Amino acid sequence: MQPASFTARELAERFALEISGDGAVAVSGVATLARAQAQHLSFLANPKYRAQLAASSAGIVIARANDVKGHPGTVLVALDPYISYAKIARLFETAPIHPPGIHPSVDIAADAQIEPGASIAAFVSIGARSRIAAGARIGPGCVIGEDCVIGANCELTANVTLVRRVRLGARVLIHPGAVLGADGFGLAQERVDGVEPHWIKVPQLGGVVVGDDCEIGANTTIDRGALDDTVLGHDVRLDNLVQIAHNVRVGDHTAIAGCVGIAGSTSIGRYCMIAGAAGISGHLNICDHVVITAMSMVLQSITVPGEYSSGIPTTDGRTWRKNVARFKQLDTLARRVNAIEQGNLHD
Amino acid sequence: MQPASFTARELAERFALEISGDGAVAVSGVATLARAQAQHLSFLANPKYRAQLAASSAGIVIARANDVKGHPGTVLVALDPYISYAKIARLFETAPIHPPGIHPSVDIAADAQIEPGASIAAFVSIGARSRIAAGARIGPGCVIGEDCVIGANCELTANVTLVRRVRLGARVLIHPGAVLGADGFGLAQERVDGVEPHWIKVPQLGGVVVGDDCEIGANTTIDRGALDDTVLGHDVRLDNLVQIAHNVRVGDHTAIAGCVGIAGSTSIGRYCMIAGAAGISGHLNICDHVVITAMSMVLQSITVPGEYSSGIPTTDGRTWRKNVARFKQLDTLARRVNAIEQGNLHD
Amino acid sequence: MQPASFTARELAERFALEISGDGAVAVSGVATLARAQAQHLSFLANPKYRAQLAASSAGIVIARANDVKGHPGTVLVALDPYISYAKIARLFETAPIHPPGIHPSVDIAADAQIEPGASIAAFVSIGARSRIAAGARIGPGCVIGEDCVIGANCELTANVTLVRRVRLGARVLIHPGAVLGADGFGLAQERVDGVEPHWIKVPQLGGVVVGDDCEIGANTTIDRGALDDTVLGHDVRLDNLVQIAHNVRVGDHTAIAGCVGIAGSTSIGRYCMIAGAAGISGHLNICDHVVITAMSMVLQSITVPGEYSSGIPTTDGRTWRKNVARFKQLDTLARRVNAIEQGNLHD
Repeated sequence: MQPASFTARELAERFALEISGDGAVAVSGVATLARAQAQHLSFLANPKYRAQLAASSAGIVIARANDVKGHPGTVLVALDPYISYAKIARLFETAPIHPPGIHPSVDIAADAQIEPGASIAAFVSIGARSRIAAGARIGPGCVIGEDCVIGANCELTANVTLVRRVRLGARVLIHPGAVLGADGFGLAQERVDGVEPHWIKVPQLGGVVVGDDCEIGANTTIDRGALDDTVLGHDVRLDNLVQIAHNVRVGDHTAIAGCVGIAGSTSIGRYCMIAGAAGISGHLNICDHVVITAMSMVLQSITVPGEYSSGIPTTDGRTWRKNVARFKQLDTLARRVNAIEQGNLHD
Repeated sequence: MQPASFTARELAERFALEISGDGAVAVSGVATLARAQAQHLSFLANPKYRAQLAASSAGIVIARANDVKGHPGTVLVALDPYISYAKIARLFETAPIHPPGIHPSVDIAADAQIEPGASIAAFVSIGARSRIAAGARIGPGCVIGEDCVIGANCELTANVTLVRRVRLGARVLIHPGAVLGADGFGLAQERVDGVEPHWIKVPQLGGVVVGDDCEIGANTTIDRGALDDTVLGHDVRLDNLVQIAHNVRVGDHTAIAGCVGIAGSTSIGRYCMIAGAAGISGHLNICDHVVITAMSMVLQSITVPGEYSSGIPTTDGRTWRKNVARFKQLDTLARRVNAIEQGNLHD
Repeated sequence: MQPASFTARELAERFALEISGDGAVAVSGVATLARAQAQHLSFLANPKYRAQLAASSAGIVIARANDVKGHPGTVLVALDPYISYAKIARLFETAPIHPPGIHPSVDIAADAQIEPGASIAAFVSIGARSRIAAGARIGPGCVIGEDCVIGANCELTANVTLVRRVRLGARVLIHPGAVLGADGFGLAQERVDGVEPHWIKVPQLGGVVVGDDCEIGANTTIDRGALDDTVLGHDVRLDNLVQIAHNVRVGDHTAIAGCVGIAGSTSIGRYCMIAGAAGISGHLNICDHVVITAMSMVLQSITVPGEYSSGIPTTDGRTWRKNVARFKQLDTLARRVNAIEQGNLHD
């Protein structure tokens, strides 16, 4: 298969960019500035890589006007080169084609509804009363339980499980191994005379609601709500191995990186960015436009937009051991400083 | 399908509760106090939500006698309202019905034993010498390897993998994507002349034993033992994305929240509660009745029941950066305070 | 089935060890020193367990010469008893036999190539242009997307997903639920007048390359690269629930324990050991022979081999709360100590 090829002039027209240099130059793929050859499109988004531009063999570069002054090659001038790159790069994606239709191996409940134009791959199970909209793609090995709704043009890549009462908007992309709609972790300890205290499972009667244009990473888990639903707004982006507990709410356009855990009933605002492996306790409110840095431990609600952090970065092991020993005595140390100050004042 | 409806009188009788108010009031669902309508049952377990009771439109409320004095509506009076709610709410759960029987698509070893009364869904594989007891439900896409035992009334929801030598008691519930019985992470570095040092895999010859009434969350992993087994007692409750390494032992009635990791050969007692994203090193002993708070780092054995914590909660980014810089000098700071004190003493 | 039985003499010859004691003693299984009976082989690798040797009923023990002086039983004398144990123990592993061949249920693209001698289990999907080498074993429920290469004698245990452009060397072992080759988490926020800022997905055009003899744990995720590939060298060992973001590179012989997260474009050297739940930020370089202890937060590149740590270990809850309160004032405390010192100097 011949790769598609595009001239700078074609790209400029299609993506509303200006050309600097020779518009007849054509590219058939993308690459980083460092690795690009003449047949490659590249981009310069972060000015700190400007030095790489001069050395690059890229046929075409997408860049801001300011960053390419004096550059002799062909440039597509963009206000936001990374956005323009993201859009153009799709032309070079060799995404598999999934023709509509239902693979003969599937196990679909009699009262499930599959709209014409949906694509259902091999070894898929679909439970009672679930509905799959046109343009949706259900990849191999996915299990969709009862009372689920898969909106138009959703993609469940492979081996995804929606347990029960999961309702997806349009264009939701779910990566392999993700589990939506499993029981929330609801337990009550029963204490009755003559029996050891033991856990009683609290029924999880809610569902999971996911808005349009969300993306859910590989092996991420989103439990269904206890009474109300667990809710993701529109354009929410979750990376891999994220845990979203029951009754959490995540606002529109919020992005959450890998290994983050959010405990039950916490509400996250719009346009938040939560970096990798951060943890957020239950029953909190995080307002809009909050940035939480990696591995932070959030134990209280946040009401003011801005950046929040915690955790101690690594040092060499010997320094770490000494500082840890001191931390265990930190309250005592502070009291000693108090005493010194008072002694000084009394002098 | 008409939802089931129950009067306060019926519920009081069935769950041994007392009624205050009109026993003829009927409910057909459950909801939070804030959202409940006349047809809903709700509950008041935490006295701090007492104000919501007055404003609630719930048809019936489950509550402690003390918390409903003067409340005009229908109340089911309970010693532990949350426990009573948990039991009553099951009436409203529309759990799917899984008729006994084996889906024709399955791949079952000739010498595996499936008791009559088990339910095996589509695309399930069952390996040699494994046994599935009556009442067990193996959901779509589950893979059960060799020499496994699934006790009576267990449920493996969907896409669960039991690799080898996994023995489940009765009524164990395993959520999608969980993996039990994978190889423990056992490696030895071989150093021989003339070859780069490299890892040798240590065979993992043990299994996984899970007691009765355990629950294992979505995408949680429990490795099988190296020589002895990895063991969960009875009524152990694991949330999602928990990692249990080889030869770990977890005592009866212990609950472990999402994203917790427990390293190899550690033993956790009975009635422990381990909050989200905590980490516990290997070869430790944690005694009974220990509470470990979220994101704590446990590096030593714990021999006294009680609550244990570590980690620093978030502050704004600027404060965090300043405090982190000071932490890296904490040992030095402590030495300086020592010097000041000695100087003062010498004055 | 009769378990295999081996005399000390047979084992000594096969594994190039010396015998001390009766070479005719035979064993048919392995066990820890504490649990071993006469028919068991055991080992003493860590001298601190030397006391267990005297009390052990093991038929044969593998140990260093120094650790068994005066021991009356049969000993296989080894320079590295754990390595010798790891090799001998394989004799007692009852690994399932997977005869070559393709299960009739599979869904394989017309242009995928399966070499004779590969074993493909039930409910496997294999996409366009993918190749499976001889001796490879693809377990039940695995999904292999387009343009993947599975080298000779690889094993994908069960329910593994390779999304696209994943190339495995020889003898790679992947445990259940692992996902390789999912989209990297690449997003750009588009801001145009009249529309709410929203995320644009950046196409992930790279792949994943895994060297020979790697092991990848259960439910671990390795995303494919944005432009270049995500790369694991040879003999890299990943435990369960590890997250490897796009464009990460991991050097030969590095081992990474459970729950570790490594952010995008970070490069890890050779012979590193990263303990459980550590987190490493993006775009860093970690040199060869670095040890990172459990739950450490790595925010900067590491250029000197050695051990690095961070995090605060648990204390009782009351002490923790007091020290945390002081930490939030640590910068102020340090300034106060500065002031005291200056005051003293000025005295």
